[in-house]
Amino acid sequence: MERCDVLGRCSEEPARLTRPFASNAMRRAYGHVMSWMREAGMSIRQDNIGNLRGRYEGAPGSDSTLILGSHLDSVRDAGKYDGPLGVMVALAAVQRLHDTTSRLPFAVEVVGFADEEGLRYGTTYLGSSALAGAFHAADLERADADGVTMADAVRGFGGNPQRIDDDQWSGGKLLGYCEFHLEQGPVLEAKGLPVGVVSAIAGQSRYQLTFTGEAAHAGTTPMAHRKDALVAASVFVETVDAYAAGQEGLVATVGQLTVYPGAANVVPGEVTLSLDVRHPDDTERRLAAERLIDIAGQTGKHRSIAVTTNPISDNPTVSCSTRLTTLLEQAIKDLGVKPMQLASGAGHDAVVMAGLADVAMLFVRCKGGISHNPAESVTEDDVAVAIDVLGKFLELLATER
Amino acid sequence: MERCDVLGRCSEEPARLTRPFASNAMRRAYGHVMSWMREAGMSIRQDNIGNLRGRYEGAPGSDSTLILGSHLDSVRDAGKYDGPLGVMVALAAVQRLHDTTSRLPFAVEVVGFADEEGLRYGTTYLGSSALAGAFHAADLERADADGVTMADAVRGFGGNPQRIDDDQWSGGKLLGYCEFHLEQGPVLEAKGLPVGVVSAIAGQSRYQLTFTGEAAHAGTTPMAHRKDALVAASVFVETVDAYAAGQEGLVATVGQLTVYPGAANVVPGEVTLSLDVRHPDDTERRLAAERLIDIAGQTGKHRSIAVTTNPISDNPTVSCSTRLTTLLEQAIKDLGVKPMQLASGAGHDAVVMAGLADVAMLFVRCKGGISHNPAESVTEDDVAVAIDVLGKFLELLATER
Repeated sequence: MERCDVLGRCSEEPARLTRPFASNAMRRAYGHVMSWMREAGMSIRQDNIGNLRGRYEGAPGSDSTLILGSHLDSVRDAGKYDGPLGVMVALAAVQRLHDTTSRLPFAVEVVGFADEEGLRYGTTYLGSSALAGAFHAADLERADADGVTMADAVRGFGGNPQRIDDDQWSGGKLLGYCEFHLEQGPVLEAKGLPVGVVSAIAGQSRYQLTFTGEAAHAGTTPMAHRKDALVAASVFVETVDAYAAGQEGLVATVGQLTVYPGAANVVPGEVTLSLDVRHPDDTERRLAAERLIDIAGQTGKHRSIAVTTNPISDNPTVSCSTRLTTLLEQAIKDLGVKPMQLASGAGHDAVVMAGLADVAMLFVRCKGGISHNPAESVTEDDVAVAIDVLGKFLELLATER
Repeated sequence: MERCDVLGRCSEEPARLTRPFASNAMRRAYGHVMSWMREAGMSIRQDNIGNLRGRYEGAPGSDSTLILGSHLDSVRDAGKYDGPLGVMVALAAVQRLHDTTSRLPFAVEVVGFADEEGLRYGTTYLGSSALAGAFHAADLERADADGVTMADAVRGFGGNPQRIDDDQWSGGKLLGYCEFHLEQGPVLEAKGLPVGVVSAIAGQSRYQLTFTGEAAHAGTTPMAHRKDALVAASVFVETVDAYAAGQEGLVATVGQLTVYPGAANVVPGEVTLSLDVRHPDDTERRLAAERLIDIAGQTGKHRSIAVTTNPISDNPTVSCSTRLTTLLEQAIKDLGVKPMQLASGAGHDAVVMAGLADVAMLFVRCKGGISHNPAESVTEDDVAVAIDVLGKFLELLATER
C-alpha cells in the first residue's frame, strides 16, 4: 500500500493523479516498479508498446509461464489503486517466493501494462493488446490533445512503433493470465467479504460521435437561424441517460465532450463526444448501442446538425477460466474466507488477454464502490488477504501440475 | 484587404486563424501593423496591457485628439476581418492624410486593441478597458488553459502588469472614439447598403456556471446511483436554447463547456460552461439572465448536482453619440450613399470606450451575416466606401470645429 502511495505521486498534474500512456509520470513510476522487481529477484524488460515485464524464473526444467499483472496508467484525477494494486500484489507474492528462495515448476511473469484506461489516445488496452497480438497498427496514427501521434509517443518512450508485433507473447506455454484488481463496485462491501472471484467481464461498446452544425456569432445570430451543435449534443446526452436508466443491466455514459470552437461568444459549430455502452449480455448491449446511435442521428436531423459515428471498440463479454477460477476459490477457502463469484462491470486487461490465454480475476473490496476518483480506498487487511490468496493460488497451481 | 490577409496568417494554429491576447501570433501581427503605422507617418507605442497605439499629430497648436480603432485579437478559427478591418480602414485614412501632407486641427490616434474577444482569459475588452481606465486589476490573477496568469502573459508581451493604470488616456481633450467594424449580421446585405451607422450596442451579461456531481466508474456505477454533472448541464443547455427562442429580441448562448475529468469511461463529476445573454433592452436582458440562472439551480437540484454561478461581465446597452453619428451620416450622404441606422447585437470596444469619450460606429456589410468563422467576407467596393466615409468624416469633424 505504501508502494501505491509512491506511484500515486507519479503524476502529470501537480495536485492530482493523472498518469497517461508514455508520459513522464509513467517513466517515473516505472523507475520505482523496476527497483521493486529487481528486489524480488526478477529480470526486467520494457517492450515496444511500453509494458514493463518482470520475470521470475521457475525451477530448472520448467517450460511454462503464468502471467500476473494489471495496468500502471490512470484516468485523470484518479485513485491510487485502480491498476497499480494488481501489480503490487503480484510483486508481493513473488517477493515471498524470492525471500524463501522458492522456485515454482513454472515461471511467473509480472506485467505492468502501459495503457489500459486509454486517457491519452481515446483507445483502451494498448498494452495488453500488444502482448496478446491484438494491437491495431492503425492506432499509431492517432494524435493526442497536443497533436503528438501514438507512434511518436512510443518512440519517445523508448519503443519502436514498427516492431510492436514483436511484443506478442513468444515465451512458450502459458498457464494463464491472472489479474487482481479493485472491485470498483459495491458488491463485496455489501456482502462483507474482503475478496471475490470474477465470473465474467461485461462487454462494452465504445464510439466517438461528432455533431457538426455551424459556428456563428453569439450576439448577431438570431436563435431561429442557429445550427448549434452543442444544443443537439445536449439533447443526445440527456437521451442516453434516460434510455439506459430504463433498461435493466444497461449502463451508458457520455464521459468526454469537446465543444468547438469553444468561446463564450461563439455559437458552437462542432461537438465531439464519447459514448460507452455496457451490458452483461452481448446481444442486449449491441441492440442498445445501435438504438442510441440511431437516436443521435435523428436528434441531429431535427436541428440540421450532421452526426457522424466512429466505432472505437467492441469488446464482447469475457468468461473467466473455470479451471483457474476453481483454484482461486480453493485458495480463498483454504484461508478460511467465504468464496464468492461476481461479474465485472468494468473492463480489464484480462478482456484482451483472454485472446492469448485462460484468464482469471480476483476483486479486492473497495470503499463505497468508488473508483476513478481520488477517494478510491482499500484496507490493509483486505490487501493482505489478496496477497495470501495469490500465494496460495500459486501453491495450488504448482501442486495441480 | 491585402493587409487583412497578411494579418490572417498570423495565427497560433497552422490551418486556421486563432490569435489570442499576448500570443506569439499577436506579436507577429504587431510587427506588420507597426510598419504600416510608420509608413503613414505615425509615432508608435505599445502600452502595458499591450495595445498598439499609433499617433498622427494634428496641425501646430491643436490640443485635442480623435481616437480611431478596433481590436487585433481573434476568436478561435476566426475570419480575417472582425477587428483588423477597423484598424486597417483607420490606417488607410491616415495614410491619405500623410500622402497629401495634410494636418487636421486635431491629432488622430489609431489603436489596435490587445484583446476584445477574451479567448485566452474568458474576459472581454482587456485592451479598451485599460485605455478607458476601467481595467479590473483582479483579472491579472486569471490563468489561461495552460495555467499562465494574465500578469505573466502581460510581462511576457513586454508590459508591466503593475502599471496598467498608466495606460488610461492622459493625452488631453478627446473628440471621441470612432470604430469601423464588420456588421456580423444580415441587415445591410438585406437592405443592399455597403455601410450603416450604429445607433446603439446591445447590452450583454456573461456568466460562468459550474455543475458539480460525482465522478464515478462508467462500468460499475448503476444509472440510478449516478450524479452525472454533464447530464444536468445538458438539460440546462437545451433549456437556454428553448427559452431564448421564445423571447423576442433575446439571444442566449452556451459557447464553452468543459467536462471534468473528461474520460470515456468516467461518469462526469464536474462541468463548467459559459452563458452569454443579450437583449437591446437592459431590463429584459437582466430578467432573462436571472431566470436562466434560476433554472440552472433548479435543474441541478433535481439531479443532486450543485450549481454555482460566477458573473463574468454585465455591459449595459450603449447609445452612440448623436453628434458624431450625425457627422457619419452626413459623410455617407456626401458620398451619394443612403444612410441607415442599425443596432449592434455584438459587443465592441466602443462599449468600454463610451466610459471615456463619445463613441460612434460604422458597420461594413458582410456576406451572409457570417462572422467568427473563416467564411467571413467583405467586398473591396464596400471597404473602399468605408475608407471614403472615414476620410469625409474627418473633413467634416475638422470643419465643424
